[in-house]
Amino acid sequence: MPRPTKSRSQKAGLPPGSLVHIGEKLSETTKVTLLDYDGDHYLEKNIDHIEELRAFMDRQTVSWVHIEGIHDTRVLEQLGDVFGLHPLILEDILNTDQRPKMQDMGDYIFIVLKRFCNTCDEHSDITAEQVSVILGPKYVISFQERKEALLDPIRERIKTSKGRIRKTGADYLAYAIIDMILDSYFGILETLGEKIEIEEEALVNNPAQSTLRAIQHLKRDMIFLRKSIWPLRESISALERSESPLIQDATGIYLKDIYDHAIQIIDTVETYREMLSGMIDIYLSSLSNRMNQVMKVLTIIATIFIPLTFLAGVYGMNFKHFPELEWHWGYLLFWIISMTIAVVMLILFKRKKWL
Amino acid sequence: MPRPTKSRSQKAGLPPGSLVHIGEKLSETTKVTLLDYDGDHYLEKNIDHIEELRAFMDRQTVSWVHIEGIHDTRVLEQLGDVFGLHPLILEDILNTDQRPKMQDMGDYIFIVLKRFCNTCDEHSDITAEQVSVILGPKYVISFQERKEALLDPIRERIKTSKGRIRKTGADYLAYAIIDMILDSYFGILETLGEKIEIEEEALVNNPAQSTLRAIQHLKRDMIFLRKSIWPLRESISALERSESPLIQDATGIYLKDIYDHAIQIIDTVETYREMLSGMIDIYLSSLSNRMNQVMKVLTIIATIFIPLTFLAGVYGMNFKHFPELEWHWGYLLFWIISMTIAVVMLILFKRKKWL
Amino acid sequence: MPRPTKSRSQKAGLPPGSLVHIGEKLSETTKVTLLDYDGDHYLEKNIDHIEELRAFMDRQTVSWVHIEGIHDTRVLEQLGDVFGLHPLILEDILNTDQRPKMQDMGDYIFIVLKRFCNTCDEHSDITAEQVSVILGPKYVISFQERKEALLDPIRERIKTSKGRIRKTGADYLAYAIIDMILDSYFGILETLGEKIEIEEEALVNNPAQSTLRAIQHLKRDMIFLRKSIWPLRESISALERSESPLIQDATGIYLKDIYDHAIQIIDTVETYREMLSGMIDIYLSSLSNRMNQVMKVLTIIATIFIPLTFLAGVYGMNFKHFPELEWHWGYLLFWIISMTIAVVMLILFKRKKWL
Amino acid sequence: MPRPTKSRSQKAGLPPGSLVHIGEKLSETTKVTLLDYDGDHYLEKNIDHIEELRAFMDRQTVSWVHIEGIHDTRVLEQLGDVFGLHPLILEDILNTDQRPKMQDMGDYIFIVLKRFCNTCDEHSDITAEQVSVILGPKYVISFQERKEALLDPIRERIKTSKGRIRKTGADYLAYAIIDMILDSYFGILETLGEKIEIEEEALVNNPAQSTLRAIQHLKRDMIFLRKSIWPLRESISALERSESPLIQDATGIYLKDIYDHAIQIIDTVETYREMLSGMIDIYLSSLSNRMNQVMKVLTIIATIFIPLTFLAGVYGMNFKHFPELEWHWGYLLFWIISMTIAVVMLILFKRKKWL
Amino acid sequence: MPRPTKSRSQKAGLPPGSLVHIGEKLSETTKVTLLDYDGDHYLEKNIDHIEELRAFMDRQTVSWVHIEGIHDTRVLEQLGDVFGLHPLILEDILNTDQRPKMQDMGDYIFIVLKRFCNTCDEHSDITAEQVSVILGPKYVISFQERKEALLDPIRERIKTSKGRIRKTGADYLAYAIIDMILDSYFGILETLGEKIEIEEEALVNNPAQSTLRAIQHLKRDMIFLRKSIWPLRESISALERSESPLIQDATGIYLKDIYDHAIQIIDTVETYREMLSGMIDIYLSSLSNRMNQVMKVLTIIATIFIPLTFLAGVYGMNFKHFPELEWHWGYLLFWIISMTIAVVMLILFKRKKWL
Repeated sequence: MPRPTKSRSQKAGLPPGSLVHIGEKLSETTKVTLLDYDGDHYLEKNIDHIEELRAFMDRQTVSWVHIEGIHDTRVLEQLGDVFGLHPLILEDILNTDQRPKMQDMGDYIFIVLKRFCNTCDEHSDITAEQVSVILGPKYVISFQERKEALLDPIRERIKTSKGRIRKTGADYLAYAIIDMILDSYFGILETLGEKIEIEEEALVNNPAQSTLRAIQHLKRDMIFLRKSIWPLRESISALERSESPLIQDATGIYLKDIYDHAIQIIDTVETYREMLSGMIDIYLSSLSNRMNQVMKVLTIIATIFIPLTFLAGVYGMNFKHFPELEWHWGYLLFWIISMTIAVVMLILFKRKKWL
Repeated sequence: MPRPTKSRSQKAGLPPGSLVHIGEKLSETTKVTLLDYDGDHYLEKNIDHIEELRAFMDRQTVSWVHIEGIHDTRVLEQLGDVFGLHPLILEDILNTDQRPKMQDMGDYIFIVLKRFCNTCDEHSDITAEQVSVILGPKYVISFQERKEALLDPIRERIKTSKGRIRKTGADYLAYAIIDMILDSYFGILETLGEKIEIEEEALVNNPAQSTLRAIQHLKRDMIFLRKSIWPLRESISALERSESPLIQDATGIYLKDIYDHAIQIIDTVETYREMLSGMIDIYLSSLSNRMNQVMKVLTIIATIFIPLTFLAGVYGMNFKHFPELEWHWGYLLFWIISMTIAVVMLILFKRKKWL
Repeated sequence: MPRPTKSRSQKAGLPPGSLVHIGEKLSETTKVTLLDYDGDHYLEKNIDHIEELRAFMDRQTVSWVHIEGIHDTRVLEQLGDVFGLHPLILEDILNTDQRPKMQDMGDYIFIVLKRFCNTCDEHSDITAEQVSVILGPKYVISFQERKEALLDPIRERIKTSKGRIRKTGADYLAYAIIDMILDSYFGILETLGEKIEIEEEALVNNPAQSTLRAIQHLKRDMIFLRKSIWPLRESISALERSESPLIQDATGIYLKDIYDHAIQIIDTVETYREMLSGMIDIYLSSLSNRMNQVMKVLTIIATIFIPLTFLAGVYGMNFKHFPELEWHWGYLLFWIISMTIAVVMLILFKRKKWL
Repeated sequence: MPRPTKSRSQKAGLPPGSLVHIGEKLSETTKVTLLDYDGDHYLEKNIDHIEELRAFMDRQTVSWVHIEGIHDTRVLEQLGDVFGLHPLILEDILNTDQRPKMQDMGDYIFIVLKRFCNTCDEHSDITAEQVSVILGPKYVISFQERKEALLDPIRERIKTSKGRIRKTGADYLAYAIIDMILDSYFGILETLGEKIEIEEEALVNNPAQSTLRAIQHLKRDMIFLRKSIWPLRESISALERSESPLIQDATGIYLKDIYDHAIQIIDTVETYREMLSGMIDIYLSSLSNRMNQVMKVLTIIATIFIPLTFLAGVYGMNFKHFPELEWHWGYLLFWIISMTIAVVMLILFKRKKWL
Repeated sequence: MPRPTKSRSQKAGLPPGSLVHIGEKLSETTKVTLLDYDGDHYLEKNIDHIEELRAFMDRQTVSWVHIEGIHDTRVLEQLGDVFGLHPLILEDILNTDQRPKMQDMGDYIFIVLKRFCNTCDEHSDITAEQVSVILGPKYVISFQERKEALLDPIRERIKTSKGRIRKTGADYLAYAIIDMILDSYFGILETLGEKIEIEEEALVNNPAQSTLRAIQHLKRDMIFLRKSIWPLRESISALERSESPLIQDATGIYLKDIYDHAIQIIDTVETYREMLSGMIDIYLSSLSNRMNQVMKVLTIIATIFIPLTFLAGVYGMNFKHFPELEWHWGYLLFWIISMTIAVVMLILFKRKKWL
C-alpha cells in the first residue's frame, strides 16, 4: 500500500495554485478522449487539441472528457482555460496526494476519489490512485494518471445504451463513476479478508513473529483504507445534501445508494480491525503458552533427575567408612529408591496436570 | 456467525439496479402468500401470479404479501411492476448482504432488517438472515429467503384477532414484524450469555488456549451483533421521527417501545464486550501465574539439590591427601550437613511464601 | 450484582402490551397504599380495591399511590383502567429488566428508575431493583417489587410537613422519589470505594490471582452501575428540558440539582473504572516482578554451583595419570579455587544489582 | 490528592436544601470581610453581623463579601436571607464535594470552582478546595473553607487600583477570582510535570515496582485534575455565552481568555496522561528485558558447564575395562576437549548476540 | 521537541493584560520591517520608531508590518497604541506558550500559529515557535521571536509580483502566511516519517530497549504535533465560516484549501500514531520471542545432558557389589545407551519444532 504523505514539501514556498505534479508518473503520454451522447446520439473521439472541446460545451448533449496521464501540466492549464476551472482545483488534480473530497464551486462540482487496485501492480500489492471528477452542467471531466480500463464498463454501458445512463444527465454519469470506484473497495476488502483468514490459520497452526508482522501489515492497510473511505463517505453525503442545481432530484436515490455502500465498507473495515486486534491478543498469548510448555519440560526433567544425580553423587563419594557401599544389595536398593523417586515425581506432575 | 462482506465484487461493473441475488439460496421454491384483513374481514391466499395482487391494491383492507425465497429475480421484477418499486430497492432486497436501514421513498417505506437464529442451523451456530419489509399505504410486503415459521405468531394474532392488530393499519403490522425480529436478538443474547458463563467457568478451572479462542470468538459475535443492531436502532429512530403520512401518530409509542428494546440490546452487547475484555485479561494473567508456579518448582528443586550435588561431588574426588575421607564420622557428617542445608533452604522458601 | 438481560425471550411472540411479570418475585402479597395531602390536609390509607382510588382523582390534593409487589398483573390492569395508562407502560412496569427512562405520555409522565441496595441481600452483595414512577396532574404512582422502607423518609417528611413537600405539587413528590433513589447510588459507590481500597492494599502486600478476579468483579460492577446511571442522567435532563405542564417552573432547579448529582455519580464511576484499570496494570507487572525474583534466585544458585560441580567432577575422574591428585595441597587448592569462583560470582551479581 | 466522593451518603434521606457541611473543617472560626469600592472610593471592613451587609446592597459601588470558614451553617442561612439565595445554592456551597459548575439563577449567578494547592499541606501532597462565588448585580460573594491568602493579590489590586479592576463592575471581579483559581492549576501542572520527569529518570536508571506505583499515582492525579477542569471549562464557556444582564459585553473577551487557559490546561493534562501511558509501556518492557538478561546468564552458564560436567562424570565412572583412563595423555586430552566445547559454545553465543 | 506548559506560573497573581514575555529569548534585537504595496506600488522599509507606522494606516495600500524579536514589551505597547490592540491580545502575543487560535476582535482578527522547524536547532531536534498574525482592514502585523527567513518567500512573491498576491488585499496576505506555516508541518512529518522507518528497520533487525524509547519519543512528538494542529484546523475553519468584513469572499476558497491541508496533516499524524502503537506491540512480542529462544536452548541442553550426567554418576558409584562395572563391554554399552538417549531427545525436540 502507498506510504503516507511524502515529498509534499517540495512545493513549500511556491505560491498557491502553482501547477506541479506530485505523485508517480505512471503513463508515458497524456491521452484525452471525448464521449458525447444523449438518448439518440453517440460520439467517441480522441482529442488532440484541448481547444476542440470548446465546440461541445454549448451542445445539449452530455460530454464526458477523460484525461489519462495528468503529469502534463500544460494540458491541464488549457483545460482550466476552456472550462473556467480555478487554479486551486487544477493544483488539487495534480497533487495526487489528496484526501477524497467534494467541493461545490458553483459552476461545477469538484470531486476527488481514491481507487484501489490489487491487480495493477505485478508485486501483487495493493495500489491506490487518485481519480478526480469535475461535474459541470452538461459535462463531466475525469482525470486519472494510470492507463487502465477502469471506466470501460461505463463507456460500454453508454455505447450499448444499457441501463438508464443514456436517458440521464451529467450528474448520473458522475454518480456512475463514483459507484465504479466504490466497487473497487469491495474487491480490496475481499482480498484483505482472505489474507486475514490465512493469518488466522497460521495463528492456530504455527504462530511465528512473521505472523504478527503480517497482522500488523494488514492492520496498517485497514488504517489506510479507513483514511480514504471516511472522507469519501462525507463527500457523498455532502453531494446528497447539496442543493446545487447540477444535481437533479432523481439522482438523489442513487447517491443514497452509494452512501449505503460507503457505510458498509466502513463497517467491514472496522470489523476487520477488531478481528486483527483480537488476533494480536491470541498471538501474544500463544507466545506465553509456548513458553509455559518449554518451561514445563525443563522443570519435569530437572526435577526428576537432579535429586537422582545427587543420590548417585553420594554413592560415588570416597569416604573410608561408608556402610551402604559394603551391602550386597546396595546397588539394587539404589535403583529401587531412584525409580521410586522418579515415579512419585511423575505422579505429582500428572496430578498438577503438567503431563 | 456469517462472515463479513463477501462476493459482493461479483456485481462490480454492472449498472446500478441490476437484479442479482447475492447470498445463499436457502429455499427451493419461491412462495408468495397474501393475508388481507380489516376489523371484520380476514382472507388468506397463496398467490401464483403476482398480477393477482393488483386487485387488492385498491381495497381499504390491509394486505400483507409475504415472499419466501427471494432468489427468483423474476418474481421481484413483477412485484416491482405491480407496486411501483424503484429498481434500487429491488436490488437491495436481493442483496442479502445489506446493512439494516430505513428508506422513506415517499409512496412507501423500505426497511431492511437482520434476524438472528440459533436453532436454524444444525451445526448449532448462529445464523443471520435478511428480512426486508415494504410498508405502503394499505399494504406490507415482507421478503425472506429462508422457509421458516418466523412470522407465524403474527399471522396467528391476525387470524385470531388477538391484540390490537386487526383494528390498526399497515404501519402497525410493519411494527409487529420489526418487534418480532428484535425479539430474536434477545434469544441470541441469552445464548451468548450462557456461552460466556461457560468460558468464565473454564477460566477459573482450567484456562487453555482454546478458552481464549472461544472468548475471541464470542467477542467477534458481539462485533457482528453490534454491527447489525446499531443501524437498526437508527432506523427505528428515523421511523419514529419520520413525518411520513404512512405512519399514524398512534403507532409512535410502539416505535418508541422497540427503540427502547434496541437500546437495551446495545447495552447488553456492550456489557458483554467489556466482560469478555476482562476475561482476556484474566486469561493472560493466569498464563503468567502458571509460569510463576512452574518456575518456583524448578527453582526450589534446583536450589536445594545443586549445592548438595556439589558437596557429594567434592567427596567423590580422588585427591591422595584428603583428610575428611579418613574420618570415621565423615559420611554421617556429610548427611548432617546436607540435611541442614536442605532444611535451611526450605525455611527460606517458606518465608518468601514460595511454598 | 444482577446479571444482564435474561429470560426476556420468554415473551418472544406475544403481542406487545401483554402483561407478563419478568423478574424475581420478591414479596408475597401486593400492597397498595395511598397518601393524600396538601398544605393543610393529610390522609394515609391502605387500598384493598383499586376502584377506591377513583374518588381521589378529582380532588385538588396530591395523591400518592404506592404499589409494593408488582407481580400481580391483575392489580396493574385495574390501575391502568382507573388512571388510563397505556398497555405498553404497564408492560414496562412489569418488565423489571428495563433501562432507566423517562417517557412523556401527555397526560402523565412515566419514569423508570433503578435503585441499588447493598444491605437488602443477606449474601452481602449489591442488588438492583426497578422502581417505576407515574407522575400525573395531581397524583404520583410508584411501583416497587420489594417490601422495603426505601420511601419511608419521604412519607415521614410529608407526615411531619418537613421541608417544602407539603406546599408543592405532585411534580415535587416525583422529584423527591428520584432524589431518594439517586442517594442510594452514593451509598453503593462508598461501598465499592472501600472494596477498591481493600484490593489496593492486597495488591501491595500479596497480589494473588484472586485479587485480579476481585478487581475484575469490581470493574463489572462499575459497568453495571454506569449502564444504569447514564440513561438516568438523560432522563433527568429530559425531564428538566421537558415543556410538559405537569412540571412546574419552580421544580426546575430541583431537577437541575439531581442532574448534578447524576453527573457526579458518573464522574465517580469513571474515576473508579480508571483506578481499577491502573490496578490491573500493577497486578500484571507484579507477576512479572515476582517471576524476575524467582529467576534471579535460580540463576544465582545455578551460576555459582554449576562450575564448582564441574570442578569437583574433574577431580573425581579416574585417570591413571593425574598429576594434581598426587599434590599434597591439591585438596586445599581445590577449595581455594572454588571459594574464589563463588566470591567473584557474588561480586558480579552484586554489581548487576541482583542481590 | 483528595479521595473521590465520600461520606455523601450521610445526607441520604434528608430533604433537599438541608444545610449540612460536607467536607473537612479547615479553619476554626468563620470570618466575613467586606470590600466596597468603585473608581473613587474604597472601603475594607470586617463583618460581625451579616445584617450589616444589607446597607451595602443598594449602593452603586461594587461590594465583595468574602467568607472564610463555611462550616458555620448559621452564617450561611443569614447570608441566604440577606441576599435572597435559594436553599439549594446554600446546600451546594456547604457540600464541598461539588463538581465545578455555573448556574444562572436570574438574579445572581452561582459558580463553583476547585482550587488546587501544593504548598497548603505539610505532607507535601496536593490538596483541593472548593471556592464558591456568587455574582449579583453589584456584589460578589466568595466562599472558602481554608484560611488562606489565595485572593489577597486581587484585594491588593483593588486597594492600589492596579489594572482595570476599579473601573469595572462586579462581573470583572468574579472573572478575576476565576482567573486566580485557574492560575493555581498551572502551578500544579508544573509540579506534576517535574514529578513525571523524576519518574522518567527513574525509568531509565533503575525501574522498580515503586516507579510503576508512582506513575499510577500521577495518572490518578491526572484523572482527578481532568475531572475538575473539564466542568470548569464548560462553566466558563456557559458564562461567556450567557445572555445574563449580570455580565457586561466588555467582560466577554476576558472570559474568552480564561476559556483559552482552561483549554490549555486540559491539553497539558491530556499530554501528561499520554506520556504516563507510554511510561507504563516502557516499564513493563523493561521488566521483560531484565528477565531476558537473567535468563541469558543462566542459559550461558548452564549450556557451557552441563556438557562438561557430564564429560567429567564419564571419566569418573568405575568400569573395570576403561581404555581412556589408561592413556598417558588422557587427562590432558580431557581438558583440551572441555576447553574446545566451552570456546565453541561462547562463539555460538557471541554470534547469537547473547554476549 | 519543546516541553509542555512551563513557567507559566510566574505570572500567577499579576492582573490580566500584564505584558510579560514568556518563552525563550531567541534574537538579540527587535527589528520592525514594513512592506507597503498594491498592484502598482511597492515599498520596503525598516521602521525605527513605531509611530512612523501611523502614516501608513490611512493609505489604500496593503501594509505588512513584521516584528522580529517580541521580547521587547515596549515595542508591543507602542504597537498596541498605534493600531488600537486590546491588552489581552498583546499579552497573548508575548506568551509564546499559547495554543493556536483565531479571535475575531471586530476591527481586526488575531491569529496565533505554531510553526515547526527541524533545521533551526543545531542539535537536530524539532523546534516550535509561535507566530502571531493580526489582520486589519488594510494591514497585517506578524510577530515572530526568531530571526529567520521563514516569510521571505512571501516577501519575494510580493516584490516580484508573482502569483495573485499583489492584486489582492490584506486577507490574502494573512492566508499566505498561514499557508507558509502549514507547509512547515509537511516537512516535519516527512522527517518523522523517516525516523519511523529507521525504527521499523531496527525493530526487524535488532530490537533493543533503545528502540522502544525512540518509538515512545516519536509518539510523544505526535502528541505534540496533534496538540498544535487540531486547534489550527479549528481556527482555519472559524476563519472560513467567519462573516467578518475583513475577509473577502474570494479568499474563501483559499482558506478551504489550507483547511484541507490541515485535515491531511491530522490524518497523517493519526496514521503515524497507529503505526507507532503497532510497533510497540511488535517490540513487546519480540521480547517474548527472544525469551522463548533462550529458554528453548537451555531446555534442550539440560534435557539431553541431565539424564546422561545421572547415568555417568551411577557408574561412578563405589558399591562393592556392582555387576555392570565388571562387564567387558560395560563402558561401550554406556556410550551406546547415552547416545541413544541423546538422539531420541533430539528427535523429540525436532518433532516439537524446537529445533
